[in-house]
Amino acid sequence: MRLARIEHDGDAVYASVDGDQLLLIDGNPFGSHSVTDTALPLDGATLLCPSQPSKILAMAVNYRSHGEPVAVPQPFLKTPSSVIGPEVAIELPRDAERVDEEGEVVAVIGRRTRNITVDQVDAHVFGYTCGNDVSARDWQRADRQWWRAKSADTFTVVGPWIETDLDPAAVGFRARLNGESVQEANTSELVFSIRECIAFISQAMTLEPGDLVFTGTPGTTAQLSAGDVIEVEVDGVGVLRNPVVDAP
Amino acid sequence: MRLARIEHDGDAVYASVDGDQLLLIDGNPFGSHSVTDTALPLDGATLLCPSQPSKILAMAVNYRSHGEPVAVPQPFLKTPSSVIGPEVAIELPRDAERVDEEGEVVAVIGRRTRNITVDQVDAHVFGYTCGNDVSARDWQRADRQWWRAKSADTFTVVGPWIETDLDPAAVGFRARLNGESVQEANTSELVFSIRECIAFISQAMTLEPGDLVFTGTPGTTAQLSAGDVIEVEVDGVGVLRNPVVDAP
Repeated sequence: MRLARIEHDGDAVYASVDGDQLLLIDGNPFGSHSVTDTALPLDGATLLCPSQPSKILAMAVNYRSHGEPVAVPQPFLKTPSSVIGPEVAIELPRDAERVDEEGEVVAVIGRRTRNITVDQVDAHVFGYTCGNDVSARDWQRADRQWWRAKSADTFTVVGPWIETDLDPAAVGFRARLNGESVQEANTSELVFSIRECIAFISQAMTLEPGDLVFTGTPGTTAQLSAGDVIEVEVDGVGVLRNPVVDAP
Repeated sequence: MRLARIEHDGDAVYASVDGDQLLLIDGNPFGSHSVTDTALPLDGATLLCPSQPSKILAMAVNYRSHGEPVAVPQPFLKTPSSVIGPEVAIELPRDAERVDEEGEVVAVIGRRTRNITVDQVDAHVFGYTCGNDVSARDWQRADRQWWRAKSADTFTVVGPWIETDLDPAAVGFRARLNGESVQEANTSELVFSIRECIAFISQAMTLEPGDLVFTGTPGTTAQLSAGDVIEVEVDGVGVLRNPVVDAP
């Protein structure tokens, strides 16, 4: 199943992506629900971030190509207020000097999750989507913590939908800046697997349905400038595409 | 006004604290609402965290007595999943070696807030409450970011209610461990005032009604052990009291 969240008659509603159609969902897709036969065209629909996370975690230095090896997983926090969906403009803050894209595979939690083992993770994950962990490098270096470096408004880009049928152990993904490849990797290259990261996080904190785990970015990231178009593509999911503008 | 959030008939509802009574509130206390004449006794009521934050920020090293001077405010993020209210047990994680209390004055945002000046802050703050920014010191030192050091379940303690009539410029507050004073300060000693911190945060991110800003902890913090009772008292607000247990 591909779960999308869309703007419809002024509301945010969930829908199942079925070929070139969206079938509206009745109820809570993370709980009791049914797919209706009310169909809308996918083409032209306004897709939103496909879940409403109460909490977002992201993994630092989780590809050897992106940083020094670490002994335990190194999550950090991002805010729901920084979330945007597909096609929404990433805004470059006027007082940040260098803002980079970070293409990632993102896990979406499906059930209340606390203190689980690696073997239990699949039963707690709803599915996977594409993410762009936009990062202000000068703030990331200068500030004690990455509060604004990773969570300025528009810095958490998620979509276009959640694919529920994906094995996270070996997923290819890439980022393209203005159509040119800037990152390319496979989750098989992760230092800590997606399952290991989620089990580790759950030792300290409760994850809720819809919460997001950004699983790490590979290699060297590309600087964003106003006028750019940045895409993150995850095999088996789709493409997350956003323009870049200077903040007003 | 003193705004409380309480458990009532299995629901979480808002109420106004009026002497030894709670008067139930109809509507959204951060928007259109009225105080009803349905009264419950304050004594014996189950008080919850007095808002439902979508986001929590906290200030690092904001008292000279607590750390080296900094050039700009140094916020960090805490998660809603770590929030507990008064009288709920703070759980010491089994794999953390040293967990400390941090008594603080907490600002509660009242209106959508983005890119405001210091002069505009008061109009965007709903009121103030007591907070305990529970911190696992070994995780805080060893991890790249403070994701679990400050946001393990039960590590964000808030209450007992929000006082809307308080000048944040000079508020005395203190922490008591098992009845003995362990921290004592006044917000007049802050490196960056509460108004400066909120204006600064709003340059990077949108604050929403109910969001919390922990404003910093003074001096030396005390280690928590199972069986302790920790209190944070803010003059003009009240006392936030919690027992401490080992995590199950």
